[in-house]
Amino acid sequence: MVNRDWTVLGEKVTSWINEAADQLRASLSKPLEVSEKSAHNDLVTNMDRSIEQFLIGKIRADYPNDKIISEEGYGDGVKDKRGVLWLLDPIDGTLNFVMQKRFFAISIGIYENGNGKAAFIYDVMADELFHCITGSGAYQNTRKLSALTDIAIDDALIDLSPTWLKPNRRIHEEIMTEIVRRSSGTRAYGAASLELAYVAAGYLDAYFTMRLSPWDYGAGLILLTEVGGLCSRADGSPIDILTKQSVLAARPGLHQYMSDHIREQVNQGRFIKEPE
Amino acid sequence: MVNRDWTVLGEKVTSWINEAADQLRASLSKPLEVSEKSAHNDLVTNMDRSIEQFLIGKIRADYPNDKIISEEGYGDGVKDKRGVLWLLDPIDGTLNFVMQKRFFAISIGIYENGNGKAAFIYDVMADELFHCITGSGAYQNTRKLSALTDIAIDDALIDLSPTWLKPNRRIHEEIMTEIVRRSSGTRAYGAASLELAYVAAGYLDAYFTMRLSPWDYGAGLILLTEVGGLCSRADGSPIDILTKQSVLAARPGLHQYMSDHIREQVNQGRFIKEPE
Repeated sequence: MVNRDWTVLGEKVTSWINEAADQLRASLSKPLEVSEKSAHNDLVTNMDRSIEQFLIGKIRADYPNDKIISEEGYGDGVKDKRGVLWLLDPIDGTLNFVMQKRFFAISIGIYENGNGKAAFIYDVMADELFHCITGSGAYQNTRKLSALTDIAIDDALIDLSPTWLKPNRRIHEEIMTEIVRRSSGTRAYGAASLELAYVAAGYLDAYFTMRLSPWDYGAGLILLTEVGGLCSRADGSPIDILTKQSVLAARPGLHQYMSDHIREQVNQGRFIKEPE
Repeated sequence: MVNRDWTVLGEKVTSWINEAADQLRASLSKPLEVSEKSAHNDLVTNMDRSIEQFLIGKIRADYPNDKIISEEGYGDGVKDKRGVLWLLDPIDGTLNFVMQKRFFAISIGIYENGNGKAAFIYDVMADELFHCITGSGAYQNTRKLSALTDIAIDDALIDLSPTWLKPNRRIHEEIMTEIVRRSSGTRAYGAASLELAYVAAGYLDAYFTMRLSPWDYGAGLILLTEVGGLCSRADGSPIDILTKQSVLAARPGLHQYMSDHIREQVNQGRFIKEPE
């Protein structure tokens, strides 16, 4: 166990986030340096890098023994979950940041020996902070989020990209079809941390993707767990917070229905394939 | 020609919308009466009806000779486009209104002899009014929207429902596949009037659906046209503002690319089918 005052940590992180958000808002009126990473829609900007360095500087100054996994690579080469681990995305939804100048978030999830302890997901332009210290309830700004209740698939709003409904390398394109067809509708906002926070807040009933990185889901997983939501890989197996993987996040009964459905489809011979 | 001061009309409509929005915000803390229309995800609430009646009352009092087409049916049986015609949706995105309590809009488009004259799309919870008087520029609250410039499909954010990418009655499921695959990404917010406004504001580069009603697209079409965007049926043919139809709305060059692609696919034997 680490001897730590999580409330003090929460206050510090919130003030760092506010400072970072000021820098991000100010940057919107200046030219942005954008470059491509793995693909033409996988972007990084000078602001992703500078906000990550700013936040890592703050973490290192106050918590020098903690480890950090972060999107732009200024963190550590983390091999195990011992101690306190920060999963940090300086700008989740970089494509939205570049193209929409809104619907992007700073996402910070903090784990102790693999257990979620604190989460912060800040929608910078909407000034909306989803946050929790594990065991003390989850909040959207000052509003306490309710425990998630059950919902039938027919009444559910599902967030997923059409990518997973067309031929792709990760999931047979028919596996999610029945779920989408039975649902009330689908949504896609393009910022995973916010989409997970929306499930926690009840704006969405489920979020599904076949590929998500620790910095994308790290905070959302903690927030969702705090309100009784479930978060696993597509087939229902547990998330390993050190790796890229599929993520199925939903209200509890709906999570059961969806993961059962996916496992059944796999048992019938349709494939799912986790990222390497 | 109708002798009308459109600026005065704009001021009146804005004040009616503000009053209606107050009623909507107040309603969120009370139980909502929800019933199904054509399908389990086609909802109407007591508030759709009461806001429509409120707005129609205001229109009738000040503009008694105008005609109204509205979602919940308190308008007129309109057969032609002569005179002044209001296309009115009291709550666009009813599913969002019921389930998310946000991301819904009041949408009002006003045509004179078939020509767009004024548009108002109000995101009630975000307090964001997209509006224009034709010829005087389009605005997001007080910010003037820029004329839309061109974008390559590879850099474009496309808003469409996965419905149109899976087998359905309206469009062969492969027609939009290449567009989605080439694009930067897809989004779906679940409120057509806002999605059209987002194209006008540059948050999205295109919006596509195979089925939309006059009250859904009436205001968006005017707003988009004002900033140089294009809005047509899927195959590029003109919108008839009196009927339900497909809608393809996009930046000018992208609109050309997408409608060309759809027509080519149809020429190669794949079907599209307009709503009856």
